[in-house]
Amino acid sequence: MNRMPRILIAARTNPEGFATLFRAELPEHEVVTAVPDDGAPTPYVVVGLPPPGLLASLKGLEVILSINAGVEHLLASGEVPPGVPVVRMVDPGLVAGMVEWVAGRVLAWHRNLFAYREQQAGGLWAQLPEMLAAERIVTVLGAGELGGPVATMLATLGFAVRTWSRTPRVVPGCSGFAGRDALGDAVAGADVLVNLLPATAQTIDLIDHRLLSRMRPGSLLVNGGRGSAVVDADLLRALDDGVLGAAALDVFRQEPLPGDHPFWSHPRVFITPHAAAITHARTSVAVMAESIRRHERGEPLANVVDPARGY
Amino acid sequence: MNRMPRILIAARTNPEGFATLFRAELPEHEVVTAVPDDGAPTPYVVVGLPPPGLLASLKGLEVILSINAGVEHLLASGEVPPGVPVVRMVDPGLVAGMVEWVAGRVLAWHRNLFAYREQQAGGLWAQLPEMLAAERIVTVLGAGELGGPVATMLATLGFAVRTWSRTPRVVPGCSGFAGRDALGDAVAGADVLVNLLPATAQTIDLIDHRLLSRMRPGSLLVNGGRGSAVVDADLLRALDDGVLGAAALDVFRQEPLPGDHPFWSHPRVFITPHAAAITHARTSVAVMAESIRRHERGEPLANVVDPARGY
Repeated sequence: MNRMPRILIAARTNPEGFATLFRAELPEHEVVTAVPDDGAPTPYVVVGLPPPGLLASLKGLEVILSINAGVEHLLASGEVPPGVPVVRMVDPGLVAGMVEWVAGRVLAWHRNLFAYREQQAGGLWAQLPEMLAAERIVTVLGAGELGGPVATMLATLGFAVRTWSRTPRVVPGCSGFAGRDALGDAVAGADVLVNLLPATAQTIDLIDHRLLSRMRPGSLLVNGGRGSAVVDADLLRALDDGVLGAAALDVFRQEPLPGDHPFWSHPRVFITPHAAAITHARTSVAVMAESIRRHERGEPLANVVDPARGY
Repeated sequence: MNRMPRILIAARTNPEGFATLFRAELPEHEVVTAVPDDGAPTPYVVVGLPPPGLLASLKGLEVILSINAGVEHLLASGEVPPGVPVVRMVDPGLVAGMVEWVAGRVLAWHRNLFAYREQQAGGLWAQLPEMLAAERIVTVLGAGELGGPVATMLATLGFAVRTWSRTPRVVPGCSGFAGRDALGDAVAGADVLVNLLPATAQTIDLIDHRLLSRMRPGSLLVNGGRGSAVVDADLLRALDDGVLGAAALDVFRQEPLPGDHPFWSHPRVFITPHAAAITHARTSVAVMAESIRRHERGEPLANVVDPARGY
């Protein structure tokens, strides 16, 4: 008897919602949300950060599908069985969400929306100095699945956009910088620095006071990548000595951000709770189902994580 | 003796700045900022709202160049001599500024940036429900020099965009509605209503409680056009009865907005002091100089105001 290939949904948030969407996408598969104990193979598992021992317990595991774009916690957990590919999430909804969030954060700062809100509280009618986007330089760290579309949208909005990436990449309409040695030049004179880099050994503490000092005084830092890229104490120092005018942060070294962290009460730090780019169930299940179909047709999987590189 | 054609800068803000830029653009012209009393002709005058009697006093006036896109105050002043064309400002910098401002206001609301700011003040780490731009309908009133580029940018950001205009106009990627009878349909179910219409007899009081009630409950009104299009009392009622969730207003029936106006202290009214799209001296002088060149080559002027239409 031929069994239907099994998909285990081990995501902690909304597993039944994911299961319903998977059943609609892949009716020839068995979709379960409880860990099976029937000894039959489970070739596919959908995970965020799986419970300890889960992955090792699954018989016949062929592909791990991550619902997250960032897989550093999954890799660091040591739970991924050797030789089993991890496919990280490249969700068009997630990319669209990040593009919207970064564009919104940059425009809100560029057009003084929060400053005008403060003026309103004081009953003050007064135009602030306004510049055009074309007169501002935005540097985007990352030029891949997230950085590329974000840089393109910022250029479409009129900003002068530079991208920086580990290896050379071309984003139309943007100036490209690549490699650690070019980082300072990529940031020099920038009005806005947008971080979209993954958390890897190479990106830890990349954004320190020295790098921020290369920007134009009073500039904006936007972090939608990972909190580990930013040295928190250096960021606070840069805000207080005038190097930075403001910081919009969606990611932090510890999440939720601890209640006593000075970011909470800093008047020029704008916090969102890791909400910039959430995985949207509908669009992401379509992507994961396509990975399963490719695997079953014997085609190479896209977006397989390289454990050595970390993403 | 051939006189150099004279250009009088009668703008109240920064006349010397305009004059310097005009002299660089048109070195074969005489550029003055003081009203001439030599009896010689002044074929060109650059104005916002001119002092009473100024225009009638100018000998040989051929073209009035408005530094503003909206000319309703100039027309209503009764100061425009019959038969002298008024060229209204269509400044690429002004258009770019409006596109940035509307996109910033819509994204800040769509991605809850001000709501997260309030949560931060309370030390609250909690994701709010997030939607993708593709799941929101934005209706833009106006599909011309301002409305067209704004609608295009909102569509590029992923929103489902409808435009409404007096006469049919096509904006690529948007659904077009035209004529007074189609206004209700254009607004029905919209999440965001953006007004960019000029102030005319047809647009006064266009946005009332009845029209706002056609939108989705909790929606956003963005007014970057003219204050006269909105019935203030209806807007406040719509905010308080849940029809609207928020309003971002850059223009008002009286400006500066009087200190006792209830908009100032309403928690869900976001005020900017007519700063959405300011005329940028550099880009606007290039446009006005080109109008003068066209006139002197005997070519028809662009963007001449039709007094009957009002813009």
